[in-house]
Amino acid sequence: MPIKFTIIQKCPDTRARLGTLQTAHGTVKTPAFMPVGTQGTVKAITVDELGEMGIGLILSNCYHLFLRPGIEVIARHGGLHRFMNWDGAILTDSGGFQIFSLGGLRKIDDQGVTFTSHIDGSTHFLTPERVTRLQNMLGSDIAMVLDQCPPYPAGQNEVREAVKRSGKWARRCKQAHLREDQALFAIVQGGVYENLRRESAAELAEIGFDGFAIGGLSVGEPKELMYAALNYTVPQLPPEKVHYLMGVGSPDALLEGVRLGIDIFDCVLPTRIARNGRVMTAQGYLPIRNSIYSTDLSPLDEACSCPVCNSYSRAYIRHLLNAGEILGLRLTTYHNLYYLDRLMQEIRKAVSENRFEQYYREVSPSLKKMYGGVV
Amino acid sequence: MPIKFTIIQKCPDTRARLGTLQTAHGTVKTPAFMPVGTQGTVKAITVDELGEMGIGLILSNCYHLFLRPGIEVIARHGGLHRFMNWDGAILTDSGGFQIFSLGGLRKIDDQGVTFTSHIDGSTHFLTPERVTRLQNMLGSDIAMVLDQCPPYPAGQNEVREAVKRSGKWARRCKQAHLREDQALFAIVQGGVYENLRRESAAELAEIGFDGFAIGGLSVGEPKELMYAALNYTVPQLPPEKVHYLMGVGSPDALLEGVRLGIDIFDCVLPTRIARNGRVMTAQGYLPIRNSIYSTDLSPLDEACSCPVCNSYSRAYIRHLLNAGEILGLRLTTYHNLYYLDRLMQEIRKAVSENRFEQYYREVSPSLKKMYGGVV
Repeated sequence: MPIKFTIIQKCPDTRARLGTLQTAHGTVKTPAFMPVGTQGTVKAITVDELGEMGIGLILSNCYHLFLRPGIEVIARHGGLHRFMNWDGAILTDSGGFQIFSLGGLRKIDDQGVTFTSHIDGSTHFLTPERVTRLQNMLGSDIAMVLDQCPPYPAGQNEVREAVKRSGKWARRCKQAHLREDQALFAIVQGGVYENLRRESAAELAEIGFDGFAIGGLSVGEPKELMYAALNYTVPQLPPEKVHYLMGVGSPDALLEGVRLGIDIFDCVLPTRIARNGRVMTAQGYLPIRNSIYSTDLSPLDEACSCPVCNSYSRAYIRHLLNAGEILGLRLTTYHNLYYLDRLMQEIRKAVSENRFEQYYREVSPSLKKMYGGVV
Repeated sequence: MPIKFTIIQKCPDTRARLGTLQTAHGTVKTPAFMPVGTQGTVKAITVDELGEMGIGLILSNCYHLFLRPGIEVIARHGGLHRFMNWDGAILTDSGGFQIFSLGGLRKIDDQGVTFTSHIDGSTHFLTPERVTRLQNMLGSDIAMVLDQCPPYPAGQNEVREAVKRSGKWARRCKQAHLREDQALFAIVQGGVYENLRRESAAELAEIGFDGFAIGGLSVGEPKELMYAALNYTVPQLPPEKVHYLMGVGSPDALLEGVRLGIDIFDCVLPTRIARNGRVMTAQGYLPIRNSIYSTDLSPLDEACSCPVCNSYSRAYIRHLLNAGEILGLRLTTYHNLYYLDRLMQEIRKAVSENRFEQYYREVSPSLKKMYGGVV
């Protein structure tokens, strides 16, 4: 078994569950948020700092690494873990989402997808088999199937096509998947159409995978529609397998996702907004570049005990960002990742103490107020 | 006494000397190289990392901090140490050099200098008294006088004017200097004119300062001219005081400076070139962005035992820089600072073991070959 997922406790009132995900690179407590290291690094952060924060699982991206620096050079290092010097676990996304959202021209047929690189415009052809082999070469702990992710909004026919093709591709990925020490997760598509989500989930469950992701959400639809989709999709997934909601990282949506039965999440949100000077705090987003913080001696978040909040003032961090100093990006990124990790820790604690529903009722309204409107 | 400088050992063959510089924020072994933290941070590096490398003294810049974020906000934090969370020692440059090299318009008279900010074009007026008070407010361990730094090349008359004015200003700085826990260093000017250097040094020595810097070098003149100027200037400085060569950081020039009697140095070189992908190694500069390193599994410098060289390959670091990843800048910066710190450590060891001249003869030719031609 490449991974072992164990459900330790279930919330009696909601679908929230507490688990452990054992990998060849450590055991991760779930529900968990995965920081994103698209190009083989979580932006602005070292692997030592991730470890220091208690993070055990990160996401990287086969599509980006394929285009730059190329999978071959990573394989020569002995795989992605050694390339980036990370001894924790890695999930690699296939790049389906990136091919369909970043690329310029692309041509898709049943065989695979031809697309142009967002870096240099060069043309590439990827198939489910090839994407699987590339992830085999990367040696991530968890590989993802190649899927077709329709945009939002998309009509039912377009989404149905994507579901059908994603199903066929998932089957081919499974057949092509060779590494016994690497898990393979499927990706449920179906947009915001309940019938299509059910169809997609049923087909993928029937094929059988080590875990099941829900893709095609958090792509521009209102959050309530996303929650509705989770509500009818998650029960269709094999309950004993990992449930992964792709592209979600705002605190309110993480809490809601856990309530609806999600085990792992990923999103660029905490790191991306950090570089734009938007900081997550117990009081909501703090726009640290705002001039009102120019003489503020308090930490980013009074309620936070991260090394950044223990050591630096808002005025200092504002100055760093305003002056274009790299250290500013480091500090806000570190804090935001720490903030989300501590939120997940709190959520796990609530589930483990059989008080998740109470915790949800207490915390959700303010999280939605603070974080609900913005992405 | 704000600082205590003790010469522990002198090279019997050259002017090299080994010392300790005690400050209220720790004791620094000399000869030492000071990393530059112009805007209140050594670019891309945390204070914890500086400490980890064994660095005990950094330089910051009153001119830059005056323009942004303003000295008042730093004073509210209790000074620059607390603002940047650095418990090591700080030397603040007055900004004379910056006013004369960065500014657009400027008007100088005996009273002081009017200049426009390089950030927003706003107009400011600084006098020796004001610059001294601002550094008092910053609370650095060592403040520098305001000087007039002529460009290179400059005629003897222009340089003589600058020497005269810098002398008068140095006297006024000393009178205005109020903090007993802060040292004040003078800056010898005089360009590459021996008579003017002697004049400047004699006047400043007569006024009396806690240390003596040599300014107006490393401003574009050939290195041989700089060494010649050091050769006739250093002997004019009070021998028991710290000798500081401003703006020098290339390995060959550091070694030469020590030989000529310099105790401390500063330069943006190691951090600036790091961000451009130029790495200092035992084999000379390594242009890590070069495609020949794209599949190179070896560390930046085989001879280096820094955490970067222990953990990451050239191929990975090249990838990070090419992909615009902040981590790449962190790693090259860390390595370059470590490299220079270890060079100074080696130099100190050679002096302490009474074999500096031999060390110089062994090492200097290759350092000059590797680092002599480029800045």
